Amino acid sequence: MSHLSRTEGDLPTVDAATAAVRIAADATLLTSGFGSVGYPKAVPLALADSDRDLALTVVSGGSVGEEIDVALVEADAIARRFPYQARPQVRDALNDGRIAFADRHISTLADDVGFGDLAEADVAVVEAVAVGEDWLIPSTSLGHTPAWVDHADELIVELNRSQPLDLAAFHDVYRPGLPPDRDPVPLSSPGERIGGSRIEFDPDSLTAVVETDHRDEPYEFRDPTETDRAIADNLRAFLETEVERSPIHGDSVRLQFGVGSLGNALMSAFGDADFGDRDLIYYGEVIQDGLLDLLDAGQLKCASATSLALSAEGQDRLFADADRYAEDVVLRPADVSNSPALIDRFGVIAVNSALEVDLYGHTNSTHVDGSIALNGIGGSADFTRNAALSVIALPSTAASGDVSRIVPMVPHVDHTEHDVDAVVTERGVADLRGTSPRERARLLVDECAHPDYGDRLESYLDRALTGGGHEPHDLDTAFFWDG
Amino acid sequence: MSHLSRTEGDLPTVDAATAAVRIAADATLLTSGFGSVGYPKAVPLALADSDRDLALTVVSGGSVGEEIDVALVEADAIARRFPYQARPQVRDALNDGRIAFADRHISTLADDVGFGDLAEADVAVVEAVAVGEDWLIPSTSLGHTPAWVDHADELIVELNRSQPLDLAAFHDVYRPGLPPDRDPVPLSSPGERIGGSRIEFDPDSLTAVVETDHRDEPYEFRDPTETDRAIADNLRAFLETEVERSPIHGDSVRLQFGVGSLGNALMSAFGDADFGDRDLIYYGEVIQDGLLDLLDAGQLKCASATSLALSAEGQDRLFADADRYAEDVVLRPADVSNSPALIDRFGVIAVNSALEVDLYGHTNSTHVDGSIALNGIGGSADFTRNAALSVIALPSTAASGDVSRIVPMVPHVDHTEHDVDAVVTERGVADLRGTSPRERARLLVDECAHPDYGDRLESYLDRALTGGGHEPHDLDTAFFWDG
Repeated sequence: MSHLSRTEGDLPTVDAATAAVRIAADATLLTSGFGSVGYPKAVPLALADSDRDLALTVVSGGSVGEEIDVALVEADAIARRFPYQARPQVRDALNDGRIAFADRHISTLADDVGFGDLAEADVAVVEAVAVGEDWLIPSTSLGHTPAWVDHADELIVELNRSQPLDLAAFHDVYRPGLPPDRDPVPLSSPGERIGGSRIEFDPDSLTAVVETDHRDEPYEFRDPTETDRAIADNLRAFLETEVERSPIHGDSVRLQFGVGSLGNALMSAFGDADFGDRDLIYYGEVIQDGLLDLLDAGQLKCASATSLALSAEGQDRLFADADRYAEDVVLRPADVSNSPALIDRFGVIAVNSALEVDLYGHTNSTHVDGSIALNGIGGSADFTRNAALSVIALPSTAASGDVSRIVPMVPHVDHTEHDVDAVVTERGVADLRGTSPRERARLLVDECAHPDYGDRLESYLDRALTGGGHEPHDLDTAFFWDG
Repeated sequence: MSHLSRTEGDLPTVDAATAAVRIAADATLLTSGFGSVGYPKAVPLALADSDRDLALTVVSGGSVGEEIDVALVEADAIARRFPYQARPQVRDALNDGRIAFADRHISTLADDVGFGDLAEADVAVVEAVAVGEDWLIPSTSLGHTPAWVDHADELIVELNRSQPLDLAAFHDVYRPGLPPDRDPVPLSSPGERIGGSRIEFDPDSLTAVVETDHRDEPYEFRDPTETDRAIADNLRAFLETEVERSPIHGDSVRLQFGVGSLGNALMSAFGDADFGDRDLIYYGEVIQDGLLDLLDAGQLKCASATSLALSAEGQDRLFADADRYAEDVVLRPADVSNSPALIDRFGVIAVNSALEVDLYGHTNSTHVDGSIALNGIGGSADFTRNAALSVIALPSTAASGDVSRIVPMVPHVDHTEHDVDAVVTERGVADLRGTSPRERARLLVDECAHPDYGDRLESYLDRALTGGGHEPHDLDTAFFWDG
């Protein structure tokens, strides 16, 4: 990659403050960034530092750093925010009603903007490792950057010299066409490459290039707990049996894991899985440290995602040997990494975490007590709905055991009973496929719930059954059963 | 079509009782049938009439007739039933817990069986208009018949001479491959044909051919009510504006409407829509009488579905002129008609009804009071999730105005806030795209709810807002607000 240069041609290079001041006070910013990496840093900070009265709409690919979701929030500069966030400051603001937020599927976000359904596409602000007059190469995430660059009236590129040029080796840029003549994504296997590293754009749209050297704020994964390890053991045993049984895992097993410390711990644990001679392949949303472990151990054939969501140590490992990792790791646009059609075609096994699951399999990933938003669904519904096998993996309790995560009725549904195939806790596995709701309740109480809550869940079921029904509930106590 | 003959070759023709007695008492029957047409009739009745102690699993494509969901239920012969039903007798049985039922997405049902996730694939029992030693031509619906014939260990064909041979002209059979090498469905437009009318099978699997002449039990559509017409007017005005605005409706508008009398009435109403010079195309699940009206009036370019779910009068019209209708009407396997990938690629506008919608857009299509199942989700979630624009159309009230269909929190969620773009009632339209939950609540109360319930919904919101949150709820009164 040493032949690449950071810049090419005659570029409108300005400082961040100059770029920021040109942005209308009520503009929509479409930002790069996914998995808290590859987001623009200098222009958001310049906007936050200005004394203008801003009411921006900020649309990111996925989660971004504190330059956006802390600094701009604290400057009271964001009026509307889509589709995902993961910082306390923005979370408080949307729970207080200070920011209008909507949680959207990752797979459809580019269309939400492209079809004009979500917001105007005023200004794309994207981080790059290299830029020319009509092209750029993204940094640590691809996310929805190709779509933003395509849709936005104006383009501001942050050229980040702290991000290695070698990142070019990971990107595989592809843009789907518009319906009704949209072609299928021409990808025949998870590791195939169908594009290049450059995102091309109309040179007239490029209004500013801003040079920066701010590093991404890396992930911090907590060490796996005993519970994490027990969940991983149960999941691994379940999948080993499943892979032998199913007709679709002849030569390989395609896995996705959700973002976060539990997902990271589960990934690492699959190095020990006994899948016979089958290749292990990752087709998901983010590359986390656990995947690097598997790659280093020769246990993973390839990994496809949209973001390198690594710890500082993981970044160092990857950056030190980028060309080698890029042989087996490909970053795709988020509407390809999360494509319902591809998840189906590749027969992915999806493993995502959640806040709580109810007795019939409905799953709450996002809202405490039905009201208080945490992060967002991200791509969990893309994978959970379209996977060949979708697993919700979570501890049986929260709050040091004071709260059961298996509940009679979740007060917010992100994934319905129709999409959840199995639930795994540190207690065991409930395989819900082919079961009626009443059978599911039995399995979840017996196999997944913590025994401390078994009697109370049974009592709820008894009360609910007196009223009958296919999915028996007692609405008086559905949320007040744990007394 | 006159060159077709009903039978070809040496067939194992037997009477229904003989075929039935060979079926194991605990077998899984994979039956043809979708939209209450094209289902097997003689063998189910023979099973119901036997005095055997049966505990069958019955997996249909979609809804079937009373020979299955009444006669077999009254004979206490069904232990398990998937994925959809629409008759009081089976509904009572599953709400009482006498039949273990699970409601599944239509699009994924063939995989549910093919991957071995739902039930064994013992015996396919399918209706045909013609049959040979290694092929059959389905009757009034295609549904999941190609998959059932493929997967089942044994095949019983009901050759129904009351169904016209001309039905062959409608079918376009295609079978997707297995993941991970599943190709995209090679369909580039909604009306294109990519297969033929024959379903081929391994001749060794054909164990019986049973001749019948039972007609399908036709649909009965009620006449449109004043409310239906007001909903249609609001929907039409909304879509006329939308089609002008959106970049994806340049030459055509692709519509889907849910099954039932409201859907049928809405379809009919689109003959009057002003979509400029654009072609109107139907890409949905069933052909109902309303679509024949549009075809007869030259207002519909083509229609793609998996079933001819017509009234008796509609059947007579279609059968009298089948070759002409078949120029513009194509029946596809249900995993093609409902394919998430195709719904996305064609940019379909999906219009489905529901029982109730809550203030944040979560939608209940299936369970009264959260417990009592009605029919099932059918394909509503396939379309609602994957459409370019998904609309829930429903009256603002039920029970002659005694119940609001706009509620604070639905007690069962089939479609989440992430999937519902707009809600239309006879009162108006709430366009929920790009809105926060609190904004959605405002729109739904102001535009869609019946004014009789406005104050009570407002009071609920006030209570909920005191607790704060992104999606404010008051769990104490979420189901008890209408006092």
